[in-house]
Amino acid sequence: MDGRNLIGFKLSGIAQKIMQSFDAATLEILDGVFHVASEAEIDEAMQKATEAFQTYKNTSGKDKANFLNAIADEILALDNTLIERAMLESGLPEGRIKGERGRTVNQLRLFANVLEEGSWVEAFIDRGDATRTPQPKPDIRKMLMPTGPVVVFTASNFPLAFSTAGGDTAAALAAGNPVVIKAHEAHLGTNTLVALAIQKAAQKTGMPNGVFSSLNGTGPELGQHLAQHPLCKAIAFTGSYRAGKALFDTCAKRAVPIPVFAEMGSINPVVLLKEKLANEATGLAQQIAHSITLGVGQFCTNPGLLIAEQGSELDAFKTALSAAIEQIPPGTMLNAKVCENYKTSRKKTLAIASVQLEAETVHTGETTSGSATVASVTAKNFLANPDLMDEVFGPFSLIVSCENAAEMQSVIEGLEGQLTATIMGTTGELSTQEKLISTLQNKVGRLIFNNVPTGVEVCHAMHHGGPFPATTDSRYTSVGTGAIRRFARPIAFQNWPKELLAPALKDENSLGIWRTIDGELTKA
Amino acid sequence: MDGRNLIGFKLSGIAQKIMQSFDAATLEILDGVFHVASEAEIDEAMQKATEAFQTYKNTSGKDKANFLNAIADEILALDNTLIERAMLESGLPEGRIKGERGRTVNQLRLFANVLEEGSWVEAFIDRGDATRTPQPKPDIRKMLMPTGPVVVFTASNFPLAFSTAGGDTAAALAAGNPVVIKAHEAHLGTNTLVALAIQKAAQKTGMPNGVFSSLNGTGPELGQHLAQHPLCKAIAFTGSYRAGKALFDTCAKRAVPIPVFAEMGSINPVVLLKEKLANEATGLAQQIAHSITLGVGQFCTNPGLLIAEQGSELDAFKTALSAAIEQIPPGTMLNAKVCENYKTSRKKTLAIASVQLEAETVHTGETTSGSATVASVTAKNFLANPDLMDEVFGPFSLIVSCENAAEMQSVIEGLEGQLTATIMGTTGELSTQEKLISTLQNKVGRLIFNNVPTGVEVCHAMHHGGPFPATTDSRYTSVGTGAIRRFARPIAFQNWPKELLAPALKDENSLGIWRTIDGELTKA
Repeated sequence: MDGRNLIGFKLSGIAQKIMQSFDAATLEILDGVFHVASEAEIDEAMQKATEAFQTYKNTSGKDKANFLNAIADEILALDNTLIERAMLESGLPEGRIKGERGRTVNQLRLFANVLEEGSWVEAFIDRGDATRTPQPKPDIRKMLMPTGPVVVFTASNFPLAFSTAGGDTAAALAAGNPVVIKAHEAHLGTNTLVALAIQKAAQKTGMPNGVFSSLNGTGPELGQHLAQHPLCKAIAFTGSYRAGKALFDTCAKRAVPIPVFAEMGSINPVVLLKEKLANEATGLAQQIAHSITLGVGQFCTNPGLLIAEQGSELDAFKTALSAAIEQIPPGTMLNAKVCENYKTSRKKTLAIASVQLEAETVHTGETTSGSATVASVTAKNFLANPDLMDEVFGPFSLIVSCENAAEMQSVIEGLEGQLTATIMGTTGELSTQEKLISTLQNKVGRLIFNNVPTGVEVCHAMHHGGPFPATTDSRYTSVGTGAIRRFARPIAFQNWPKELLAPALKDENSLGIWRTIDGELTKA
Repeated sequence: MDGRNLIGFKLSGIAQKIMQSFDAATLEILDGVFHVASEAEIDEAMQKATEAFQTYKNTSGKDKANFLNAIADEILALDNTLIERAMLESGLPEGRIKGERGRTVNQLRLFANVLEEGSWVEAFIDRGDATRTPQPKPDIRKMLMPTGPVVVFTASNFPLAFSTAGGDTAAALAAGNPVVIKAHEAHLGTNTLVALAIQKAAQKTGMPNGVFSSLNGTGPELGQHLAQHPLCKAIAFTGSYRAGKALFDTCAKRAVPIPVFAEMGSINPVVLLKEKLANEATGLAQQIAHSITLGVGQFCTNPGLLIAEQGSELDAFKTALSAAIEQIPPGTMLNAKVCENYKTSRKKTLAIASVQLEAETVHTGETTSGSATVASVTAKNFLANPDLMDEVFGPFSLIVSCENAAEMQSVIEGLEGQLTATIMGTTGELSTQEKLISTLQNKVGRLIFNNVPTGVEVCHAMHHGGPFPATTDSRYTSVGTGAIRRFARPIAFQNWPKELLAPALKDENSLGIWRTIDGELTKA
């Protein structure tokens, strides 16, 4: 395991400081000495990315697609070496890590398909008219163009699918931007393996030196350095509110502010309607218990808040949920820090006088494991205690019992921005909840009916991004092909000579893409 | 002239403070006593906007189109009352104000067409598959939805087309958001007339009370209050860097940050290539002199920087440009403050030792007029003096003479973000400027060939928005139908009952719009 930084096509380890990586379950030191990037190395990576941008921004969709597909191939070629290292560093089981590798590879290939098809550039052509009076009408054409080097912060909870070659990297590269990775402290080895795979893919497919770099370091040091670097043009981040907001603040204060796409998690309210509860208490309880504890609850879409009207239906659900939760064994958490944070937040929440523990797993676990927990609180006490709106990152959910529909509405109105909200109800019940749905809609990026929020489908129609504080920019998604658009901006060309226009804007449409010509979508 | 604030469907003037409006040419006080909005009135306008949002967000495209068209009708019905007041308050001549009214009305109707057509909501449908393993594939559908009440700051230099019923208002209303106007101090009467027209249109077309309000006050007080109001969800602004950046900073520091779309002007470099200069020195000089002095130079796309290689071609152009500039009479500037600022910045620039005055109008004007001015500086001195990058808002342009192509490249590399850049050259010359074009492209929102930057076409393909400091968000345009997208965000619906989906997302596509179904654009 060569733990040097990757700067373009070379390996670099000039720093004095080193980092190490740990087995998430046993806390033993794993193979590899990781070199912390020095200021000179950070600057070199950003300079190289900027140079690479000058050619990479004009690379054809087909060539970029080859690059993304080659990354997928190289990741698969790592085979068990990657699977084993990712399992050790994240504590996640083999099935999950293999599934995540599949998601990572499919994501790269899906984005490659979008590039090959080509219409994502949103080409517009408004043809000129020299005879118009009083002024001739100019010929104007615009398309999306990449914005420049993107710094991607890898996520603790997705060592593959939202890390080195994950959704943010795939999106930034697809848009035509070089990427500089800030490796996550908790899976440095996994990062190195994947970074080397990307480097190899870049060389094999003839991409410019500097199109990809990967640096080791801590968030407060390396992360802040990268965010402040004048050549960094955008940030992609998935993680805690505290770290995401710190990046947002740093980037807003730069001499030239840059966009920060920070996905900072959420408590993902689930509204349980009466009739549905009455019909399916046990089935719902099992479905929700599974969602709460999936991946040891370490998903940004984890259902952290269950809202229902009090009564016998809710009581029956609570009993069933408690029974289900008690049967779920504790799981190894992502790393020592995540585990400690979970235990602290869980304890803090349970220490609130008005919060009642409903159920916790009866199994005992290692010190590095998190126990599934469900607690409850009345709507009045929930509304009186804003701390209960904070995410408890891990297998934890809080039931809010409301006296009546009006109180339920107040709870919904009091919520902050969320990635998702779920309604469990019969279709008949849902049709009577116009106001509640309307209120929820203002708060979230995705509304779900009779489905759990975990398991974010990677597809064209996905929107994974809700109002602040769920993310820093609710207009953009970090999952699905829409994610590419974060790293592009339109540029218009007025009366530009046809022969010098990009292929997407030339009259003949040799790419065969969808374009809006004089206001009409066409492939002509 | 009733100078009270408009709060939804009522007039309100509870404040102690008043403002007055002035004839831009004579500085005489004009008819009307304008009530400064109190804190209570600001809050009432925002509350009403938020209430109106609950119904307006679901208003059909057809109904919103009727509203926009009714605004256009009511503006035209004001006839000469509006034209005369706008002329007095802005100092702009009748032809310009009538042209601007035409632009305002056409803009509203163009946006209405987009709403009637309906595809702007970018509907995506990815159909579910219950048989997929290991997990069934959910049905996911997304579309753009409005973000909530928008505060629009009206612009000094477009009393109609970028003010009360201008591009920002039209875009925000089109997306489905209520609008609260911060009236510009310099055209309070024009604002009142147009605001009343919008109020009337809203009532006639059955829009909710609160869909539109208009408040009087100053930028630092009313503007900052509105920007900090928790119910304000986005800001649209056109004006100075100082005011735009202050709004950006305020909104980034809010407990819940909101997007600020500030268009803060630009110096719009024009690169003059040798062969073109040699062929058409006089024609180019006349075209550029006209662009510099159009609207007394008070356009954000005013060509403030002319970059060329030194030599006899440039000398001939300078002579022709000077001759043209000297013939252009001074024009009344927008208001006393703009005029004073112009005179101060002009003087400050001309006081720089390395800057040489090339020409100024030989006519004399009123104290409220601005004189056309062209100055020059060598590239070395330009690069040594960053103050020369600051916009001189008015009929002013600076020629930068470069020793050679390499020095010209350095000047371009040193530029900040710009709304536009123009290249004047022969087609043959342009094809040899790959590096220069590539560098310019990184800096601008619109690249123009052999055309002046002034005169921003309102169309689908327009992009009016460049990298900071030209705007605060280069991914969005403030001119053209793309402007609507600023005030909308996608929301996804997962496994949502078909009968409760918005018409744009229902299977049957009763709106007949373009949608992306399973990755394919279709009207099916």
